[in-house]
Amino acid sequence: MLKQPNTKYRAFAPIGLTDRTWPDAQLTQAPIWLSTDLRDGNQALIEPMDVQRKLRMFEMLVRIGFKEIEVGFPSASQTDFDFVRRLIEEDLIPDDVTIQVLTQARQPLIERTFESLRGARKAIVHLYNACAPVMRKVVLGLDEDQIVELAVAHTQMIRRMADAQRETEIGFEYSPEMFSGTELAFSKRVVDAVTEAWGATPERKVIINLPATVEHSTPNIFADMVEWMHRHVERRDSIILSIHPHNDRGTGTAAAEFALMAGGDRIEGCLFGSGERTGNVDIVNIALNLYTQGVSPELDFSDIDEVRRCAEHCTQLPVHPRHPYAGDLVYTSFSGSHQDAIKKAFAARKEGDIWVMPYLPVDPKDLGRSYDAVIRVNSQSGKGGISYLLEAEYGVELPRRLQIEFSQVVQAVMDDSGKELSAADIWGIFDREYGISEGPALNPVTSEVGAGRVSLRAQADLGVRRVQVQGEGTGPIDAFINGLNAHLASAVRVLDYHEHSIGSGADAKAVAYLELRVGDALTVFGVGIDANIVSASLKAIASGLRRAAQRGHLKFNANVAA
Amino acid sequence: MLKQPNTKYRAFAPIGLTDRTWPDAQLTQAPIWLSTDLRDGNQALIEPMDVQRKLRMFEMLVRIGFKEIEVGFPSASQTDFDFVRRLIEEDLIPDDVTIQVLTQARQPLIERTFESLRGARKAIVHLYNACAPVMRKVVLGLDEDQIVELAVAHTQMIRRMADAQRETEIGFEYSPEMFSGTELAFSKRVVDAVTEAWGATPERKVIINLPATVEHSTPNIFADMVEWMHRHVERRDSIILSIHPHNDRGTGTAAAEFALMAGGDRIEGCLFGSGERTGNVDIVNIALNLYTQGVSPELDFSDIDEVRRCAEHCTQLPVHPRHPYAGDLVYTSFSGSHQDAIKKAFAARKEGDIWVMPYLPVDPKDLGRSYDAVIRVNSQSGKGGISYLLEAEYGVELPRRLQIEFSQVVQAVMDDSGKELSAADIWGIFDREYGISEGPALNPVTSEVGAGRVSLRAQADLGVRRVQVQGEGTGPIDAFINGLNAHLASAVRVLDYHEHSIGSGADAKAVAYLELRVGDALTVFGVGIDANIVSASLKAIASGLRRAAQRGHLKFNANVAA
Repeated sequence: MLKQPNTKYRAFAPIGLTDRTWPDAQLTQAPIWLSTDLRDGNQALIEPMDVQRKLRMFEMLVRIGFKEIEVGFPSASQTDFDFVRRLIEEDLIPDDVTIQVLTQARQPLIERTFESLRGARKAIVHLYNACAPVMRKVVLGLDEDQIVELAVAHTQMIRRMADAQRETEIGFEYSPEMFSGTELAFSKRVVDAVTEAWGATPERKVIINLPATVEHSTPNIFADMVEWMHRHVERRDSIILSIHPHNDRGTGTAAAEFALMAGGDRIEGCLFGSGERTGNVDIVNIALNLYTQGVSPELDFSDIDEVRRCAEHCTQLPVHPRHPYAGDLVYTSFSGSHQDAIKKAFAARKEGDIWVMPYLPVDPKDLGRSYDAVIRVNSQSGKGGISYLLEAEYGVELPRRLQIEFSQVVQAVMDDSGKELSAADIWGIFDREYGISEGPALNPVTSEVGAGRVSLRAQADLGVRRVQVQGEGTGPIDAFINGLNAHLASAVRVLDYHEHSIGSGADAKAVAYLELRVGDALTVFGVGIDANIVSASLKAIASGLRRAAQRGHLKFNANVAA
Repeated sequence: MLKQPNTKYRAFAPIGLTDRTWPDAQLTQAPIWLSTDLRDGNQALIEPMDVQRKLRMFEMLVRIGFKEIEVGFPSASQTDFDFVRRLIEEDLIPDDVTIQVLTQARQPLIERTFESLRGARKAIVHLYNACAPVMRKVVLGLDEDQIVELAVAHTQMIRRMADAQRETEIGFEYSPEMFSGTELAFSKRVVDAVTEAWGATPERKVIINLPATVEHSTPNIFADMVEWMHRHVERRDSIILSIHPHNDRGTGTAAAEFALMAGGDRIEGCLFGSGERTGNVDIVNIALNLYTQGVSPELDFSDIDEVRRCAEHCTQLPVHPRHPYAGDLVYTSFSGSHQDAIKKAFAARKEGDIWVMPYLPVDPKDLGRSYDAVIRVNSQSGKGGISYLLEAEYGVELPRRLQIEFSQVVQAVMDDSGKELSAADIWGIFDREYGISEGPALNPVTSEVGAGRVSLRAQADLGVRRVQVQGEGTGPIDAFINGLNAHLASAVRVLDYHEHSIGSGADAKAVAYLELRVGDALTVFGVGIDANIVSASLKAIASGLRRAAQRGHLKFNANVAA
């Protein structure tokens, strides 16, 4: 069906700006940044951030160097209201940082918004209303005059309330919503009316924000639209021209860069492109694009992994392995000829040289990433590849922390030759490390002793010693651990337990992964495989303890016979 | 450190093309597409595709409608060589599809490349060599004349071999590698020399490919470079101008679109942007950008999820939830005002209208996605949110297929009011559906019977009936199932088993997830929680069978007493 010519969609029309200047402009300084991670980003999450996550995100944004942070939509959400109050009441906002809050154009909502800001030193109130034809006609049922009136009346309302709330320095931002889908002449008309209603002057600027609420066109057309506005709005010297791109066509970053070249002063976006649908524009991407062109972004991403971990924790969404600057794979060369070129260029490079490195547009070190990641051999390193091979070929699904433990084992085993390891090689390392196939039988005998308790007898080969285990507990694992602890000076506890089947039907086996704490210092995994789920678990415990013994962490009670 | 002005990087210089025409061009037809999923995409995978995956990817590419497919680098990889042979020998290449293979500029590699193509009806041989200054000086140690000589000599070699291999219609593609990082005048010099060496004519064109091997600049500069080449290369009418963008600056899609506006004829890329580092340009994205502007992309993405599943299977990399057109979240509105606007616009829309829908740049139906996904309430629907809440609040980690099963349960339970469900609400549904907290005790008694077998007695409440179970097996699950099957006309099998701890120490419990096949028709999950891992598993089996009974799928043997 997509192969047929289609009449359902219409091309976005060029605006006929033939004397555009932006294609010859060069970016030589950072824009003003507004992070909307806590507002536009947060509202598009499967699970919106709770207060703890919001605080963590806010602190990270401050640490990165954002001076303007949109922290919520307090009139629409009690959580957002409470969060704004907390920031103010606990004095969590640094002097050089301004918070911003969003509001719709309705009096009770604006009143509530001001209420949320009481006691703040300064803040920006961000008003929006829809201006696009589809919204005017289909959704709101208002004509152009009514839209202008709506915008002006509520701007004046905010101006009055700002004058009344003297303890707070109130800035004002206005967004003609869906600028990207609105006739330019009408956008100008609304913006000019709002600028006048705010009484904007060069000393008391208004922020006019042009959102690509939905990305409708190639970014050159968006740039033409921004340049047209930049050249045609009244009182341009009293306006901070802000840009708010989304990424529906996958060109949000280009749109943001061109909009700055076309006259924009400020970018609204999120870390790693969080936000509605395809996301807001990714500020990390734009900032580091500037950085690699020799322009200081005025934001600190020198520990990009820390920023990424924070964002992933707060949004519960991953950063893709190929995400520019931040993905796991973006400083990795798989191709031999790429690896060779990078090696030669590193060897030839002198300290202080301009960065000209094949296949590496940025020095990974500048972002806290290492050169080690650059040259990587297929299937060999990285827990992803290792775990994938073990799961695909052997059906074992290692818990996350075991993946990390085991990938270090693989790394240590590998020689430096860069030889590729097959799935069978990796299985061999796994088997040897955790003593799976040679794991001696435990011959457990369990019996119920009533009141939901079991008693258990078994032999356990702990490497340095074989012990007869006899214990009681709520289940076989608990009973086995209790029985073992009678032998051990270094007490063993189960931190985590995972077990699952491999195969199904008559040949099915269970594989158990036990994460153990041995004494106070050692955390170690053990793995066991058996047709019997109980035996698999006990084997895993013995496996973990043998590994603890190898590391010298297993102490026996003097008074217990082997 | 990123906040300091920096002298390590240099801005990419504009090329001074002031009479550019591309910003006024509009795209009115699809380019020639080349998929390089099986070459550039494949070489950058943690685990390169095996033959089965390659075949699946090739068939998918053909089904989508690609007419030119780069299938490998046969002189560099035996796997690729074998794959090309298999395509040819098993006659898997449709008549209207041309395969392409990559080779370096070295005689034995070119010979091996032609060997791989024996018996093909037609094929494109793709020659590349590095032209960028950093490669010439640091890596190769060759001057400009030597680079031109290298390119010309090997083009002539390929021309001679193509003339000799008469049964195959050999096309030729040449890539001046790192075009994006090479002086334009030198790129033109090499390209002109190659065009002449191939003896290109309008009837026997050469494909000249301009790779942004690394994305170095804003995409307007890349577009200027392409337009300059388009206007300055000799024998332009004998050239198919191909573009090969990567995405290091996150602007690969824009670069590709502008390059077509600047005179390009052909795009090389991968599905969903697979490929080295940040990936090749995403052909799905460009094609659907064209589609939403009323231009037929000549590629069929009407079942985008099927294409996505295939790509994820073959590459073992995910498509991000916010990936344009294909991500899980891109047709989802979380904001109430967005949902409201979409609802009104759908109501007002008439069949045959041009698509103008707030917040939805494309009709999800056109891509095989549903409107249902459009309006989604936080925390409420979608297995991601549900599973996340259960894991975060209750410590249970549902296996993937159980996530899917349970999310349907939640959807069915929810009323249409759109009210948000809390974690406690979801746990309540989970508990009720799987009968967890009211699951009656089974009081299992196990004993070893030698030779790695156990015998087990237990009571099981199967909802419609309580049964006394007595069985033997390799472990308690096997014994319980064997015992149950003595009662049942519809045989029960275990398809999958997962179990893990919740909490640790004295309060630790185990939760077991058993996927069961009941009779021939029903696959169903059961869940059990207990301090004893054996009891948890048996409870889970009973839970699954109660759910099977509710669905009328549990048949008892007539001759066995309840």
